[in-house]
Amino acid sequence: MHHIKNNMAKYAKRMDNMYGSATRAMLKITRDPEIISFAGGLPAPELFPIQEYKETAANVIEQNGKAALQYGPTEGYLPLREKLADRMKKYQINTQAENILITSGSQQGLDFTAKLMIDPGDIIICEKPTYLGAMTAFNAYEPEYIEVDTDDNGMKMAELEKVLKENSRVKFIYVIPDFQNPSGRTWSLENRCRLVELANEYDVIILEDCPYSELRFEGENLPAVKYFDKEGKVILLGTFSKIFSPGLRLGWMVAEKEIIDKINLIKQGADLQSSTISQMEMDYYLEHYDIEKHIAIVNSKYKARRDLMIQCMEKEFPKEVSYTYPKGGLFIWVTLPAEIDAADVSDKALEKKVAFILGEAFYPNEGAKNNFRMNFSNMNEERIVEGIHRLGIVLHEMIDK
Amino acid sequence: MHHIKNNMAKYAKRMDNMYGSATRAMLKITRDPEIISFAGGLPAPELFPIQEYKETAANVIEQNGKAALQYGPTEGYLPLREKLADRMKKYQINTQAENILITSGSQQGLDFTAKLMIDPGDIIICEKPTYLGAMTAFNAYEPEYIEVDTDDNGMKMAELEKVLKENSRVKFIYVIPDFQNPSGRTWSLENRCRLVELANEYDVIILEDCPYSELRFEGENLPAVKYFDKEGKVILLGTFSKIFSPGLRLGWMVAEKEIIDKINLIKQGADLQSSTISQMEMDYYLEHYDIEKHIAIVNSKYKARRDLMIQCMEKEFPKEVSYTYPKGGLFIWVTLPAEIDAADVSDKALEKKVAFILGEAFYPNEGAKNNFRMNFSNMNEERIVEGIHRLGIVLHEMIDK
Repeated sequence: MHHIKNNMAKYAKRMDNMYGSATRAMLKITRDPEIISFAGGLPAPELFPIQEYKETAANVIEQNGKAALQYGPTEGYLPLREKLADRMKKYQINTQAENILITSGSQQGLDFTAKLMIDPGDIIICEKPTYLGAMTAFNAYEPEYIEVDTDDNGMKMAELEKVLKENSRVKFIYVIPDFQNPSGRTWSLENRCRLVELANEYDVIILEDCPYSELRFEGENLPAVKYFDKEGKVILLGTFSKIFSPGLRLGWMVAEKEIIDKINLIKQGADLQSSTISQMEMDYYLEHYDIEKHIAIVNSKYKARRDLMIQCMEKEFPKEVSYTYPKGGLFIWVTLPAEIDAADVSDKALEKKVAFILGEAFYPNEGAKNNFRMNFSNMNEERIVEGIHRLGIVLHEMIDK
Repeated sequence: MHHIKNNMAKYAKRMDNMYGSATRAMLKITRDPEIISFAGGLPAPELFPIQEYKETAANVIEQNGKAALQYGPTEGYLPLREKLADRMKKYQINTQAENILITSGSQQGLDFTAKLMIDPGDIIICEKPTYLGAMTAFNAYEPEYIEVDTDDNGMKMAELEKVLKENSRVKFIYVIPDFQNPSGRTWSLENRCRLVELANEYDVIILEDCPYSELRFEGENLPAVKYFDKEGKVILLGTFSKIFSPGLRLGWMVAEKEIIDKINLIKQGADLQSSTISQMEMDYYLEHYDIEKHIAIVNSKYKARRDLMIQCMEKEFPKEVSYTYPKGGLFIWVTLPAEIDAADVSDKALEKKVAFILGEAFYPNEGAKNNFRMNFSNMNEERIVEGIHRLGIVLHEMIDK
């Protein structure tokens, strides 16, 4: 006799929180090559250092094939971790290999931090708006979110302090200080320093996500939030996805040894280790080529595309539409008049084969309906001009009537 | 004023369950090249198809570099998923690409299945003994374990049925039907069929872990447990780690579309996707080379090493020591007289620079102290002879007195 159960009910409760990322869903739509897509956060593939990577791959397998194809340590390939510790000077951080763990992209660092910290009902404080892919990672651990308003200098510190004072279950504060996703904004030096003071005072962790930090087009590099961290409260996530290649899936975490040791246990359970061969290739590349020169090429191209997109927006968009001016990164955040729903704009834009991501995807609780995110790294110049032109037509139709 | 909290207490409760895998800890000891290690589950690196992989990597980057270095879909590279669906015929399974999701090694499949299914206190039924790395993955989701005794035919089905009847919170049954880790044993056809009947009757999932299934040295391939699955209850995990290379971190899951779709959401959060380039390389390799021929070479070598290890054990071990005779895979399971503690043997063996894994690591609750696991794939013939000789001396000293 069959016992009657509903199989759906047998999944873990966390699955009620799990829904697809709007970006990943839009990626499927935008595989249609006719679509002009400002939706994803994809690097420009024409800038990948293909010839150098090809030489790198050949040399690694030639010189060290047996080790490259074998298991390696969970925390990552030591020479790469040493180089990354050294490279963190670019973020104005002094650290050691023992404070670095290699992840499969910084998405894994988001997942691991929530896995380390969050019991159901614990609170994550995040920027308003915040990166939607982080929510996709965090949601599996059933947190509550408190969003703190932001301006051109990052989170509003008075509001953050109020939230910390009133909520004892805060486990960590999630921030993207440089060229934030989705807003494109960069935190001020003062706010970086104050954030660490507050984390120390209220004894909470800061998760500092830096996928775009090296993509600066103008102005001086600011020290990472972790620069101010004297009590081991900051976990920093870095990645090669935007400065080299996302296809390799290589990122890194920087944290106190105690935290790295616990993350190591998590990684043993999650996937044992990241790809040995990808790590050895990345190490070889850093040893034999000039990644800073490569990043300068990327930044030069992305700066030109940002400039072009902003110029086109100035020309094509109704004056009621405002947008951020990012000093780096991949994204511009567009704000429509309050009465316009970005979802209507998106529907009309898709009819004209132009795609972007709705702003509401970037609010874990509920957010404004009149924003959308534009990516300027992935489309070539011609498509930027044409795409903004079509978007301008849609926006004028909706606003000028 | 500083709020006084104990930072340790701020980690999630699941971290109380997280401890390092005995295998990964032993891997660190065995990096000493003087150690004769029967501890890990490492493939023989001298068998890696280095020249073929080198050509593969060069051709993929040459022909398709931009796509290989870019983001790809969460569920994996479609041509590879199609080839894997076809290859599942070797497991006597008819399936489609939509039922396949690419993972970063089958360890990630263990993690994802527990993430999908387990709320704290839910029950996982496993073989006694079972794979310790699975516990490392599962523990993060705070399950209870019920172990079911095994014999040379797999789990004892009467005992399994009793456990299912008496426990309503069972979420899945975890099994390794072929050349089990650590025992080396293979499930009978009858038990495979009966397992699915019981899973259907009690409406629980079966997690079928097949890392060694293609490493058969003698006898006929048996159909996978999933072969008997008509109600979508079986999630099968496969991996390229043991038949090609663990360094690439590529495995796959086979399951009902509904389950694959949910796992896709989990993977979006966990790491977005596995390496695009590794997947395209694996696809290219399967297209242009004969992996079955490569697996035959691996099996021929491992069979010779198993034969040699068994011969040496027969000659060198006291007659009071028994061991399994695996028809494939990587491991032999050794049973000492009940009064001998394998930990004492391990201490003395390490003094003689011989390493293995204690049997007690393979029991989630508590297990016998008089077992250990021996790996025969990774050490060359000379080291097998010398290592078993030294182990024999230790065992005779402890047992003959």
